[in-house]
Amino acid sequence: MSSPYDAIVVGAGLSGLAAARTLCQRGLSVLVLEAAPRVGGRVCSASVAGAHVDLGGTFVGPGQDRIIALADELGVDRYPTYGTGDNAIRRHGRTSRYRGTIPPVGVGNLLDVARLQTALERLSRRIPAGRPWDAPQAAALDAQTLGSWLRERHATAAAQALMAIVSRTTWGCEPAEVSLLHVLHYIRMCGGMDPMLDTEGGAQEEHFVQGSQEIALRMAAELGDRVRTGEPVTAVERSGGESGRGVRVRTGQGTYQAARLVVAVPPALRDRIAFTPELPHGYRMLAQRWTPGVLSKAYAVYAEPFWRSSGLSGQGLSDTGPAFITFDAGPPDSSRGVLLGFVGGDYARQWDDLPPAERRARALSSFADLFGPQALEPIGYTDQRWATENWLGGGPTAAPGPGCVAPYAPFLTRSVGPVHWAGTETADRWSGFMDGAVRAGERAAREVLRGLAATGAPAAGTAALGASA
Amino acid sequence: MSSPYDAIVVGAGLSGLAAARTLCQRGLSVLVLEAAPRVGGRVCSASVAGAHVDLGGTFVGPGQDRIIALADELGVDRYPTYGTGDNAIRRHGRTSRYRGTIPPVGVGNLLDVARLQTALERLSRRIPAGRPWDAPQAAALDAQTLGSWLRERHATAAAQALMAIVSRTTWGCEPAEVSLLHVLHYIRMCGGMDPMLDTEGGAQEEHFVQGSQEIALRMAAELGDRVRTGEPVTAVERSGGESGRGVRVRTGQGTYQAARLVVAVPPALRDRIAFTPELPHGYRMLAQRWTPGVLSKAYAVYAEPFWRSSGLSGQGLSDTGPAFITFDAGPPDSSRGVLLGFVGGDYARQWDDLPPAERRARALSSFADLFGPQALEPIGYTDQRWATENWLGGGPTAAPGPGCVAPYAPFLTRSVGPVHWAGTETADRWSGFMDGAVRAGERAAREVLRGLAATGAPAAGTAALGASA
Repeated sequence: MSSPYDAIVVGAGLSGLAAARTLCQRGLSVLVLEAAPRVGGRVCSASVAGAHVDLGGTFVGPGQDRIIALADELGVDRYPTYGTGDNAIRRHGRTSRYRGTIPPVGVGNLLDVARLQTALERLSRRIPAGRPWDAPQAAALDAQTLGSWLRERHATAAAQALMAIVSRTTWGCEPAEVSLLHVLHYIRMCGGMDPMLDTEGGAQEEHFVQGSQEIALRMAAELGDRVRTGEPVTAVERSGGESGRGVRVRTGQGTYQAARLVVAVPPALRDRIAFTPELPHGYRMLAQRWTPGVLSKAYAVYAEPFWRSSGLSGQGLSDTGPAFITFDAGPPDSSRGVLLGFVGGDYARQWDDLPPAERRARALSSFADLFGPQALEPIGYTDQRWATENWLGGGPTAAPGPGCVAPYAPFLTRSVGPVHWAGTETADRWSGFMDGAVRAGERAAREVLRGLAATGAPAAGTAALGASA
Repeated sequence: MSSPYDAIVVGAGLSGLAAARTLCQRGLSVLVLEAAPRVGGRVCSASVAGAHVDLGGTFVGPGQDRIIALADELGVDRYPTYGTGDNAIRRHGRTSRYRGTIPPVGVGNLLDVARLQTALERLSRRIPAGRPWDAPQAAALDAQTLGSWLRERHATAAAQALMAIVSRTTWGCEPAEVSLLHVLHYIRMCGGMDPMLDTEGGAQEEHFVQGSQEIALRMAAELGDRVRTGEPVTAVERSGGESGRGVRVRTGQGTYQAARLVVAVPPALRDRIAFTPELPHGYRMLAQRWTPGVLSKAYAVYAEPFWRSSGLSGQGLSDTGPAFITFDAGPPDSSRGVLLGFVGGDYARQWDDLPPAERRARALSSFADLFGPQALEPIGYTDQRWATENWLGGGPTAAPGPGCVAPYAPFLTRSVGPVHWAGTETADRWSGFMDGAVRAGERAAREVLRGLAATGAPAAGTAALGASA
């Protein structure tokens, strides 16, 4: 048993690290326990044939102030996502080009998409950010899925297909799987569908020169030996009940004590920690129902971004998959060409279990459908299947089913005595994004500071603590 | 490391015990590892004020041949559920009486219920039992929930309320939460809605004199020290890959080896076992999505069954809850009066977290609404909240959401090398019932026998094995 910490953080993703960093900067003694052998959680970077690729969270855009401020502080630079030229779309076996964000799916279909988007955004504005259960008609909205709502609205087949792409990319699921209340709340937390989906002016506007994981790595470097990887937390004992001042945290390697705990893991994985006394059982219901999405990424690296010279942006949509949406994710100096394809929902279910060579062949075939046969000859290839990650369970974020959000969302953030909750799913802005992860971590840190101020001086706290919390 | 077993069974519920018993009877060496301190899983019996009560699985009915045969073999006796007299219904703040299975909700509503039942049963007959993914239009049926289907069919409010009662009792969820494909498959596996829902002639026709857990206890007694309780399995190593002949099973207390493994835990809990090499990731997707329902039971015991003398059967329905459906569960000798109330779905979410005295007060108030103020003065009371059970996760059975059944149901039963799956969710008849649990265990045992015969003689097998498997 070590001497007690002010706070222990479970999970060294962006959220947990942001919480720990905030607490550390306030002079608190902190320990971060990470189950996986690396830090970063759902951000992870790699180098493929001389090009940097982000295997998880990649893009940032306007309004994502906290991740941008953090990256700035840590000296991680941004550059614009390449978007010059025509986009490509593969539909009914044919590839065509289009400009801007409006694919050539026929005027009727476009009007239908606009109608649906307007309706979704109007509904979303009624959802209080961070409190979806307080929305008017919350239970009725929660009783629908995005899919059943689209059917009831008589969406055209093309509009449904485009909405399915939105659903797969955003939540890693088909529209039939996700609660309409969750969808509306999510849109609300992004400030609308355009901010959520657009490249220029939206959440895909920029990415990081050194890769998004670099933000996590630099936070971890600052924290030094306060971060322990490969050490899953198995049990947490709360002493003194609801108002208790402390926790005892068990891992396979040891037992640690702290005044406060921040759990910064995906909600579905909270249930892997045995709490004593048990948490109110809504927390388990939440863990069972906050199902991680299924989203994978395929990266092909080329000696040069050949599509650019044909006037193509590298952005594409495909109704055949497995890569159903693509981006040019090349480096700012254009020293390599990099195509990123997302594989999600129904496509991922098939593709994820294929042997590596077959996954590669099918992803490249998607790229070739959109950008020509040169796409079949990359100098490097890699893919990342988030659903296979034991300590994350899936990606990019949770997709709770119908009927689960109104009753259980309150347990996302409601602290239990000394136990606080972080992770991007607990954010009230940009939940599901890197920005939401940082916001949630910083919010949990503020809760810890307030809690410590209320229950007495922390073991290694500062006099300024009460005043600032 | 102990000497190797022919088979290890994880979970000592009815399914795991039935598997182990079958294997043992064939001369195989078997070890059963149960995480909880008791055997029985979702069957559990207790004594309250001199009356026996079943806190979990209770009733059996025609067609449930395997649980009945097993109970007969073990000398556990059945008796009919009391059903003489009028049933009670509480609706819009008023209580009334009715005869038989048709509540007085108005002719229009009854016609609507009949129309919906006919439609559900017609659809259900298209679902191949045990292979819902092979149904015509499987994906389209899976994209709906029972709730969205009822809305699209313009069910009356009263019909929707009755269907909600069916949903809460059967799957422990609201109609909006559960995949229509799952509902149809479930009805198919019961042979229709009447067999599933009726008392006389249906699945509630009889219960066990000595309690349903007695069946588990007698199987465990036969198995003797082959059953170890309080020993959760944490990890399973498969040796030799897909075609491997053995497993190494780790618990906190030791490591055991066996030629074959039967995992007989609720699907959602499979993910608590770390498999090496990892299972194909559809198994994790299944575990994340086979969400256990939320159903609780409240029992009040009275010196006598006072409602019988007023011509009431003890069966009741209530639109106010928390007990929304009740039964007379008294002993065959009428030495006590016993009212059983089910609390599920939205009602359970509220009620389950109340302090014990408050739960009791509200459950008794439900009984009093239906059967009069004498119900407020029991000589004993107990309740069981299945959602709080750490090693079960909920009850009575899983309620997979929309979009999950067609892609992931195949992983319920598909064995992986030496790893086989049991548990009532894996049955192809009476899944979700005690009968399904026994069927699934016996089917898994047959798989083990076939597997051992195919890969060579088991460590302690018999010559007859190959011939009989």
